[in-house]
Amino acid sequence: MEELLLKSVIASWKQTINRLDARFNSLNDEQLQKQVAPDRNRVIYLFGHLTGTHDRMLPLLGIGECLYPELYPVYGANPDRALPDPLSATELKKAWGEVNAAATLGIEKFSIDDWLKKHTAVSDEDFAKDPTRNRLAVVLNRTNHASYHAGQLTLAK
Amino acid sequence: MEELLLKSVIASWKQTINRLDARFNSLNDEQLQKQVAPDRNRVIYLFGHLTGTHDRMLPLLGIGECLYPELYPVYGANPDRALPDPLSATELKKAWGEVNAAATLGIEKFSIDDWLKKHTAVSDEDFAKDPTRNRLAVVLNRTNHASYHAGQLTLAK
Repeated sequence: MEELLLKSVIASWKQTINRLDARFNSLNDEQLQKQVAPDRNRVIYLFGHLTGTHDRMLPLLGIGECLYPELYPVYGANPDRALPDPLSATELKKAWGEVNAAATLGIEKFSIDDWLKKHTAVSDEDFAKDPTRNRLAVVLNRTNHASYHAGQLTLAK
Repeated sequence: MEELLLKSVIASWKQTINRLDARFNSLNDEQLQKQVAPDRNRVIYLFGHLTGTHDRMLPLLGIGECLYPELYPVYGANPDRALPDPLSATELKKAWGEVNAAATLGIEKFSIDDWLKKHTAVSDEDFAKDPTRNRLAVVLNRTNHASYHAGQLTLAK
């Protein structure tokens, strides 16, 4: 029964990633430089933001080290255009694919116990108080976060 | 163990709704008429769209009848401005609160077996082939859908 519940959670994550795959991989350099709306983030900023955020899921979920630690400082800790883009569009597309493949492979290997383990950004003490701060919560949160930005990406002209 | 998994799914739904509550309830009539980006949907269209979609979750999850069946035809089956807004801003805010309260109350009462029941838009035959077309999948899907439009709503100026 847990297996069926977790299968639905993984399917929701994969569906969200697959739709973004189709969008990002169809964009050329010029389209990536457009803003999603006037005076708002560029498409490439959100692309880097999602890639950097998903890269950081690897240590957060105990799957492994970040593959592209240079992304989050540029596309997460700072606003758009504060720092130069560290990767070309081609390199970023490659990074996006690698990071999501690693996260998805790791998630698919989790046992039920693994899903309920604490994520690495919560202390033992806080986790004892609130056992919902587990790996499942991270995956649900990141799926929603990806959907949030996917909605913005459709508005770029 | 299933309880803890489902608690996280419900928490994710509620967090998404609560953030939208704060946004919608802070908007006046003029702000609701703005578009999220040039030539894109008005804020009130997305507000009606989410309210109508969540209203339709009630029959889909076996919780009850739609409370505001007039919303989805205007804000789901047709594009923005094709039909007149059926409710005032005040009425729509009330509808939004009622619909989500009913959906959340219903979801919180589900047993584990209830979560894994088929939703009402899938046939017995199709459900036998794919048991992931259950109520949990509906709640995960609608949470992502709400996040998708929440991202767009932040862009309105």
